Amino acid sequence: MGLVVQKFGGTSVGSVEKIHHVANRVIQEKERGNDVIVVVSAMGKTTDELVRLAGEMTSRPEKREMDMLLTTGEQMSISLLSMALQNRGYKSTSLTGWQAGIRTEAVFSNARITDVKTERVKGLLNEGRVLVVAGFQGMDENGEITTLGRGGSDTTAVALAAALRADRCDIYTDVDGVYTTDPRYVKGARKLTAVSYDEMLEMANLGAGVLHPRAVEFAKNHQITLTVRSSMEEVEGTIIEEDAPMEGNLVVRGVAFDQGIVRMTVVGLQDELIGMSSVFTVLADNHIDVDIIIQSKTDTGKVNLSFSIKEAALHEALEVLEQHREQIGFDQIEHESGLAKVSIVGSGMVSNPGVAAKMFSVLASNGIQMKMVSTSEIKVSALVDMEKMQDAAQILHDSFSLSELAAGQA
Amino acid sequence: MGLVVQKFGGTSVGSVEKIHHVANRVIQEKERGNDVIVVVSAMGKTTDELVRLAGEMTSRPEKREMDMLLTTGEQMSISLLSMALQNRGYKSTSLTGWQAGIRTEAVFSNARITDVKTERVKGLLNEGRVLVVAGFQGMDENGEITTLGRGGSDTTAVALAAALRADRCDIYTDVDGVYTTDPRYVKGARKLTAVSYDEMLEMANLGAGVLHPRAVEFAKNHQITLTVRSSMEEVEGTIIEEDAPMEGNLVVRGVAFDQGIVRMTVVGLQDELIGMSSVFTVLADNHIDVDIIIQSKTDTGKVNLSFSIKEAALHEALEVLEQHREQIGFDQIEHESGLAKVSIVGSGMVSNPGVAAKMFSVLASNGIQMKMVSTSEIKVSALVDMEKMQDAAQILHDSFSLSELAAGQA
Repeated sequence: MGLVVQKFGGTSVGSVEKIHHVANRVIQEKERGNDVIVVVSAMGKTTDELVRLAGEMTSRPEKREMDMLLTTGEQMSISLLSMALQNRGYKSTSLTGWQAGIRTEAVFSNARITDVKTERVKGLLNEGRVLVVAGFQGMDENGEITTLGRGGSDTTAVALAAALRADRCDIYTDVDGVYTTDPRYVKGARKLTAVSYDEMLEMANLGAGVLHPRAVEFAKNHQITLTVRSSMEEVEGTIIEEDAPMEGNLVVRGVAFDQGIVRMTVVGLQDELIGMSSVFTVLADNHIDVDIIIQSKTDTGKVNLSFSIKEAALHEALEVLEQHREQIGFDQIEHESGLAKVSIVGSGMVSNPGVAAKMFSVLASNGIQMKMVSTSEIKVSALVDMEKMQDAAQILHDSFSLSELAAGQA
Repeated sequence: MGLVVQKFGGTSVGSVEKIHHVANRVIQEKERGNDVIVVVSAMGKTTDELVRLAGEMTSRPEKREMDMLLTTGEQMSISLLSMALQNRGYKSTSLTGWQAGIRTEAVFSNARITDVKTERVKGLLNEGRVLVVAGFQGMDENGEITTLGRGGSDTTAVALAAALRADRCDIYTDVDGVYTTDPRYVKGARKLTAVSYDEMLEMANLGAGVLHPRAVEFAKNHQITLTVRSSMEEVEGTIIEEDAPMEGNLVVRGVAFDQGIVRMTVVGLQDELIGMSSVFTVLADNHIDVDIIIQSKTDTGKVNLSFSIKEAALHEALEVLEQHREQIGFDQIEHESGLAKVSIVGSGMVSNPGVAAKMFSVLASNGIQMKMVSTSEIKVSALVDMEKMQDAAQILHDSFSLSELAAGQA
């Protein structure tokens, strides 16, 4: 008999029928003799509808009031799921974020969890109740209702699992696990048995959108083993843990990719140090995330600074850099749109030199030009033309033998 | 410069446009230099929709989970109204019931307010903010979300007004005040300038549904002057206060009536005392409200007990009395359906004997038979056939000259 935290996202509770289905999954776990805490998001389209209503009140709603509005979404789903469980004869109690003890920073729309007060939850579990907890929301020290930002329900589940030392934390989604790559684009994508936290973090940041990076980080910090699994089908999912064993003799775990990248180049920095620090300070002040950075000197001694950002931030980046032209000191700004980032990820790389070299040579020999490159201990990323992204991913997936394991090993 | 509490019901915030309209009314009051607290209900059909959803989860939802579900309705309207105010450039803060300090009994679906913690509200008012508070809801000592039952938003407004010693408490509704009688049925109905708490309580209990009795009782206990006024039109409303002066030389303030009444008679009680107390205990245990009671002895010495209840409770009343036949001890139960109650209400009656006599003689001389009668210090009620209700109300309204004041005095 243990404690299991289950998390179901908005699609999984998107209708009355689906909520009844989720109740079944919860009851299965309860019937195995476990205590169960279920974390749920708002029903399917509820959040969109609330955002639309807010837009009819004002074009720029204050974040505090948006949090007040949006948190009604999960409060609806927890009460409905709790009713469905009671209808089947199970004792259950729904809890808002603040009732479940989720305490956050005093920040709206994107707060971090600071603490979990477990007293009430423990008391209710001791009564044999299933607890249905509103994901995505908490309360700050001033008694304000806050939200955790994107992927917040995952984080709620992991935080509860950590605070209560749960035996398992199962993240139910509309996919059945984590894949070596995105099966919609690449042939031979294979579901992974396990990935490490660090690999998952790289994959999540690189656009593999199954789990939010913040939730993975939280799980890593508290060493909570996560399982990503399908809310609809009864199949094995993917385990996310510290030391996920590599399957077969592979050194690469997966191939991730992300579209809509721009390379910007600040040409002719007058002062190398002042210029570089000014550029990144200005961008950070405007919440523009910079990914790959390359600094170079031309033959004439000019210093150029290149970096990649998301296409969506291009307009603002150009604007704020122009506004600070004097402070930064540069000749001109160039940019190249229509790029994509393709990455290989795997903790096996650390002990296998030559992985990056293999990636570059495979891409080059297939006529795929790399515009920028970056590496970390467990990943290698390259910017390529958007039209080459899918080819590049397929070539890398094939070259690193990611689809080759026999079914029994997958 | 004072403090004004305004309350807007579900119809008044039933759409995006109406919420913007309510914002205008709030801003008017703020611009007069007052601090403003606005209490709002859930938007129009929201509650019905939530009840429907609950019905798809289970046929008998637990009250706790219903409260969890229904309170999302007001949480939506407070955030939207607050956004509308901010859109117009006003500082505003929305507060759930628990954030506004509304503390209740540990009872779901029909809790009474036990306390109002004013610290947070006072602090926010001092910052010059308009406060938008969720009506109908509070929190009990265990941190559970509770609701106040029918008319709960009125009660929230009155409780806040009392706790903060507000200068005014304005209840905005879809009618523009309290009338001498229901204008839909009786010709010459006239809007009242003022009524006393006690009169309003009698009128509210008698079916003049503008204000919930619990809210009036709360206002009376704390001597909060209420004004009932139209949320749509800019007209004078009706003031509800302790000593509302009678207009002209009238002794009667209004004529109230209520349909769907049944007279039940328990025939042949074996023991007068045991029988009577048993009957009313059984009915009270089953939450069946008894109104007029008459006990009588027949020529043969038999004791009969007659009382009136709502038609909707007839089936259950017959059932539970039959179940306790032995305990009560009676020969048989008779009942007469299709009755209505017509009442005259007015604090002037206390010092004017003969008002009841005048009512009975007026009804009798118009051929309207009275089935049961009851009186209090400020009201006289009579049960009549349902088909005679409207006639009776019109005759009484005319006889007590309720429509006769010149327009200027109304």
